[in-house]
Amino acid sequence: MKLSKLVGERLKEVPNGATLKSHIFLLRAGYIKQVSSGIFSLLPPAQRVSQKIQAIIREEMNKIGGQEVLFPVVMPRELWELSGRYNSIQEELLRFKDRTGHDMLLGMTHEEAAVHMVMNTVKSHEQLPCMIYQIQTKYRDEARPRGGLIRVREFTMKDAYSFHTSQEDLDEYYKKAYDAYNRIYKRIGLKNFISVRSDSGIMGGKVADEFMLVTDAGEDRLVLCDHCGYKANMEVAEGVRQSVDGEEKELKEVFTGNAKTIEEVCHFLETEPSKTVKAVCYETDKGELVIAFLRGDYEINEKKLAKLVRSEIKIADTDKFGLVAGNIGCLNLTVPENSYVFYDLSIKGLKNFVTGANKGDYHFINASADRDLNGVEFNDIALVKEGDTCAICGKKLRLTRGIEIGNIFQLGTKYTKSMGMKVSMPDGTTMEPIMGCYGIGIGRAIASVIEEKADDKGIVWPMTIAPWQVHFCPLRLDDENVEVISNELYKKMIDAGIEVLFDDRHVSAGVKLTDSELMGMPIRVIVSPKSIANGTAEIMMRESGETYNVSFANLINELLELIADQIEQIED
Amino acid sequence: MKLSKLVGERLKEVPNGATLKSHIFLLRAGYIKQVSSGIFSLLPPAQRVSQKIQAIIREEMNKIGGQEVLFPVVMPRELWELSGRYNSIQEELLRFKDRTGHDMLLGMTHEEAAVHMVMNTVKSHEQLPCMIYQIQTKYRDEARPRGGLIRVREFTMKDAYSFHTSQEDLDEYYKKAYDAYNRIYKRIGLKNFISVRSDSGIMGGKVADEFMLVTDAGEDRLVLCDHCGYKANMEVAEGVRQSVDGEEKELKEVFTGNAKTIEEVCHFLETEPSKTVKAVCYETDKGELVIAFLRGDYEINEKKLAKLVRSEIKIADTDKFGLVAGNIGCLNLTVPENSYVFYDLSIKGLKNFVTGANKGDYHFINASADRDLNGVEFNDIALVKEGDTCAICGKKLRLTRGIEIGNIFQLGTKYTKSMGMKVSMPDGTTMEPIMGCYGIGIGRAIASVIEEKADDKGIVWPMTIAPWQVHFCPLRLDDENVEVISNELYKKMIDAGIEVLFDDRHVSAGVKLTDSELMGMPIRVIVSPKSIANGTAEIMMRESGETYNVSFANLINELLELIADQIEQIED
Repeated sequence: MKLSKLVGERLKEVPNGATLKSHIFLLRAGYIKQVSSGIFSLLPPAQRVSQKIQAIIREEMNKIGGQEVLFPVVMPRELWELSGRYNSIQEELLRFKDRTGHDMLLGMTHEEAAVHMVMNTVKSHEQLPCMIYQIQTKYRDEARPRGGLIRVREFTMKDAYSFHTSQEDLDEYYKKAYDAYNRIYKRIGLKNFISVRSDSGIMGGKVADEFMLVTDAGEDRLVLCDHCGYKANMEVAEGVRQSVDGEEKELKEVFTGNAKTIEEVCHFLETEPSKTVKAVCYETDKGELVIAFLRGDYEINEKKLAKLVRSEIKIADTDKFGLVAGNIGCLNLTVPENSYVFYDLSIKGLKNFVTGANKGDYHFINASADRDLNGVEFNDIALVKEGDTCAICGKKLRLTRGIEIGNIFQLGTKYTKSMGMKVSMPDGTTMEPIMGCYGIGIGRAIASVIEEKADDKGIVWPMTIAPWQVHFCPLRLDDENVEVISNELYKKMIDAGIEVLFDDRHVSAGVKLTDSELMGMPIRVIVSPKSIANGTAEIMMRESGETYNVSFANLINELLELIADQIEQIED
Repeated sequence: MKLSKLVGERLKEVPNGATLKSHIFLLRAGYIKQVSSGIFSLLPPAQRVSQKIQAIIREEMNKIGGQEVLFPVVMPRELWELSGRYNSIQEELLRFKDRTGHDMLLGMTHEEAAVHMVMNTVKSHEQLPCMIYQIQTKYRDEARPRGGLIRVREFTMKDAYSFHTSQEDLDEYYKKAYDAYNRIYKRIGLKNFISVRSDSGIMGGKVADEFMLVTDAGEDRLVLCDHCGYKANMEVAEGVRQSVDGEEKELKEVFTGNAKTIEEVCHFLETEPSKTVKAVCYETDKGELVIAFLRGDYEINEKKLAKLVRSEIKIADTDKFGLVAGNIGCLNLTVPENSYVFYDLSIKGLKNFVTGANKGDYHFINASADRDLNGVEFNDIALVKEGDTCAICGKKLRLTRGIEIGNIFQLGTKYTKSMGMKVSMPDGTTMEPIMGCYGIGIGRAIASVIEEKADDKGIVWPMTIAPWQVHFCPLRLDDENVEVISNELYKKMIDAGIEVLFDDRHVSAGVKLTDSELMGMPIRVIVSPKSIANGTAEIMMRESGETYNVSFANLINELLELIADQIEQIED
């Protein structure tokens, strides 16, 4: 490819509103163009990266017996009503009417379409396990698209669905898919990725793992134990709370005036958040009150709380429920019928804590869980915090951040049951197959590789997914000698099957070299009047910065070897 | 691939509502499954065909310098308002609001997105010509989806857009694209296809060619001259009307009572439609009356008429315009101001014809164009009919039908001008690039190959796009000898790189052979206890039906040769 004809331009400035490395470089190096909020066009180099990633994914899916199919982007309401998701999913599911007034939607995942495809066509246990997958456009009406290809509304995704006759069979296949995912990330050049147990959320299953690129740029919070290897998304992470010692003192009601927040109360009473118990109040879908008590230095884990009440939850209007905001406490509390009250594990055994007196201007001090909260059950409803220890090995947990680069779920029979898919078993009975599902977003994979590998000059592509393997930069193309030899070398590279981007522009050496670093091909080859005089070309490795000269006679072989070596290094 | 694990089932019965060969066999052979009206899932074999066709298209697009990109499926209203198409396209364009209330749409073509991508990134004439293309999902809210993959709402399409600095440059590139299209159809195995000049419709350009599979199953009407090679879609076809001789007689007004239609009037006056002139009445978007007169044996060409008045047209309510329906004639006609009146070429020189008297119960007889319609202009506004002759060579035209399998357009500057895209020219001026666009629907290509090649037993895939090259049918797999040897042969075929579908089911020979014919792989290999005793396998060529035996020792080489030969035959 000649750079002079390549559609796209290189920008010097950081584009407005871009803060993530991948977002900045994808825009600056001419890989993507925004069409609408969270909606991008891929320019030729990005499409090349996308296709290389897709090819790797296809290989790995085929290796574990996947059959590639294609589901529709647009689906009818009826299909999603069978599973109940037409109503249960909120605004991310884009719904609209077609010209006949029929309710349709844009697919954000394809469980329903997958079951629709296999039901009636897969009828016997002999046909299982089977796995179907597609690589297709999806749309999720994200409230806050951000970060270029990191969080978008429209995206290309590989989604796979497996069907099994037993939990053991699913477990076995799930492990294969898990391994395939690890191979995929490795093969696209990522190193700093992990998998964590996660919440299956709207997918409706039980076991779920997320693959995460560990990076400060991530929006997911992760909890890791470097000692025993425990890894989890904050949403589901478990940790052991640090206990706070002390001797039980006498419970007292004290005046606290306008002190409402934990900060204000601590300041007023000259104590610390870890010696208080605070309340957070939510409402369920049905309007029931949910009060959660937890130690003042912990934050609520809304996902866990929502799971306990089996409902979406939203912050409650405390007035409506007759509660005194800022003075709600776990002693002498009166709540409406059908309310939920939960106590976090951080309160268990806690002594001499402050908590609201459930009336204006007053708090209790010296409350003690064992004495004053006799018989209540404690639940795990707080987020793990720095200093908590591992529930498995007891060592300190580490908190970090990550970008979700893929996820796999055990779905159970939610979809096969609700849609009525059955297969016949050897004993003449029928059963609803147990499903797994497995997703990877291609655009986010592209962005993640950039997040991990880019330096301050630009993108650094791994050889396996680089749009071109070699960036060929002849300097001083106005020199006839340079022009002739460059064109010859370009032809030789192409004939040797090398993927080469040829910077055939008549621009300064500075522009060429800066652009090549920005665009990120793994190998750069320079020729100039001086190098031609010596009969050599200069090779620079983008990642290491290593530079050396090679004679024209050896150039092609050297490049072929470098390419093969780098691919082997990544894939091995 | 083992057939026992392949997702999909084979049906004996013709599915309800399917009438087209391709629709029937795609359903019966387990290639597609309908999800909603005009919306299908592709099962694994169809996805394999689709990808092979896509690979051929990519090769041909890359050969003519195409750069692959990806545009979004979902686009914002603003982008389509720039070109004016947000308002000008009717209900086929699916519009909806996202969660923030923003107007969005589903892409049915991507001219706007293409210009959006290149504007500001392609700034100089030196970067032109350039062509970008994508293979992506599109949605067109068809009023009447039909025929399986022939006329759908959601489809995968390759669409390409080229940009040029001069009409000559576009003409040259257009020819290259035209040739690439011919190569694509040939390479996917079609023979009976032609290209015809067409109407550029909503695309807004001038020159346009459609590629058509000639078949009675088509919904497009085609006009061909077998003598000089003239080919056109009926919508734009030109033909020379047969003239009707006679001597001018005296014009008379005669009583015709309730005779209103041409049939009734001819019956009443004992004459023929070719000796009458009828009126058809339309209304423009602005409510203006359009009357078209043509000889009674011709039908109006609405596309041509709409072009003349530069407006969409719909059948007029004649009462509203004070016309006497059934008695409208081309003599003594009074029409409202701002009306259009057109006379088809079939009336030119016509003598002694019948036409309405523009009052109830009466018609004129013996009207003559030269005498009674002095000075009017004649236009080409009738459809070509059987018996018309070629405007170029004068020979009889042939009318037939076709399925549109692709189209290419010269778009002019409609999009670059309206969207404000400019490139700098060598002389320091700027110009709006001239565009071409080039489309092929993948699903329709699949269906078209089936329409052309299927026989009454099922699909007949060309070797170049068959989901698998070989269908391997061992009979009596319950025989241990057969089982062992079949598994060995299957492994050998895979090791040799042969794409093979292995019917490993324990079902009757009848079921296996019927299914293999239905599914349509180009080569079938059978082994059975008897053939094994002879040390041979039976090869059958699906298309020719030719059958012969090959020794096990020679089988793999024979298959490799057959595959290579067939690919060569198709591509040469």
